[in-house]
Amino acid sequence: MPRSSFAEIDCPIALAAEQLADKWKFVIIRNAFNGMTRFDDFAAQLGVASNVLTKRLTELVEAGIFEKTPVQNDGRAVDYRLTAKGHDLFPMLIFLVQWSDRWMKKKGGPRLNVAYGETGEPVEPVQVKTASGVVVTAKLAKVSEGRGRNPMYREIKTLVDKRRLKCT
Amino acid sequence: MPRSSFAEIDCPIALAAEQLADKWKFVIIRNAFNGMTRFDDFAAQLGVASNVLTKRLTELVEAGIFEKTPVQNDGRAVDYRLTAKGHDLFPMLIFLVQWSDRWMKKKGGPRLNVAYGETGEPVEPVQVKTASGVVVTAKLAKVSEGRGRNPMYREIKTLVDKRRLKCT
Repeated sequence: MPRSSFAEIDCPIALAAEQLADKWKFVIIRNAFNGMTRFDDFAAQLGVASNVLTKRLTELVEAGIFEKTPVQNDGRAVDYRLTAKGHDLFPMLIFLVQWSDRWMKKKGGPRLNVAYGETGEPVEPVQVKTASGVVVTAKLAKVSEGRGRNPMYREIKTLVDKRRLKCT
Repeated sequence: MPRSSFAEIDCPIALAAEQLADKWKFVIIRNAFNGMTRFDDFAAQLGVASNVLTKRLTELVEAGIFEKTPVQNDGRAVDYRLTAKGHDLFPMLIFLVQWSDRWMKKKGGPRLNVAYGETGEPVEPVQVKTASGVVVTAKLAKVSEGRGRNPMYREIKTLVDKRRLKCT
């Protein structure tokens, strides 16, 4: 039977996919990083149907990426704010900005500048690096099962090895 | 009218969302980074319906993230392989692995180890950094419109500023 939820799959990518991999969630999170907090502002700016937005915000709250807090002195109004777990997505957002600017280039230059506020020093491309500064690409990486175990990783490796055997 | 495609939106996050923000695509890309190339292997490992998989792979090929190449000496068989644009997603995948291991911790430790193959030195958490080594979080960042312009960014900022004005 086709899987519909990844929530029970013990794989870090599947877990992240279940919580994040949705077009609306990407732009909701983008807007939150830019200081947006209100349902009506998300709805107006995104041009998204109310029920779709409600579902996404509810899921993001359930996943602990957003929290709902009552607005002071404003009756029933609530703010949707990024939690620490949500704020921790910043590198993904900046990576995606840079990736889009690299691969869907715009005449004139990048669409967004990101710098360290205090000095104005621009940020570098988001990369995978070791402490000693080696940039690790997929080809240079050695990936292995962690101490926490990862049955899905073993399953994929087994299938890939079987295919290689067949082809040689 | 609610938007259904983000392809025409000139925002780097919306463009990336249109091409990537889908649960199945996340795990398809994960499997590709682990060396999987065949439709039947993706279908078997993911437990996904054929039509769903076909749609996702077609979109990934159209987006230039995968390429379809005929398998040598094997009739109609094709391989789906990551292009350079696809390989360039490696930092996002590793970030998501680390993010899940931080926020959906598993007893025993991380689910996956990633190291530099040649020396075995583990990779650091994927972060946003300047050339001089400052780690730039959302709170420390100064984001501004790039030379390539970004009307969506201005639109969001205007809405957020209007809301702030209302609340003070």
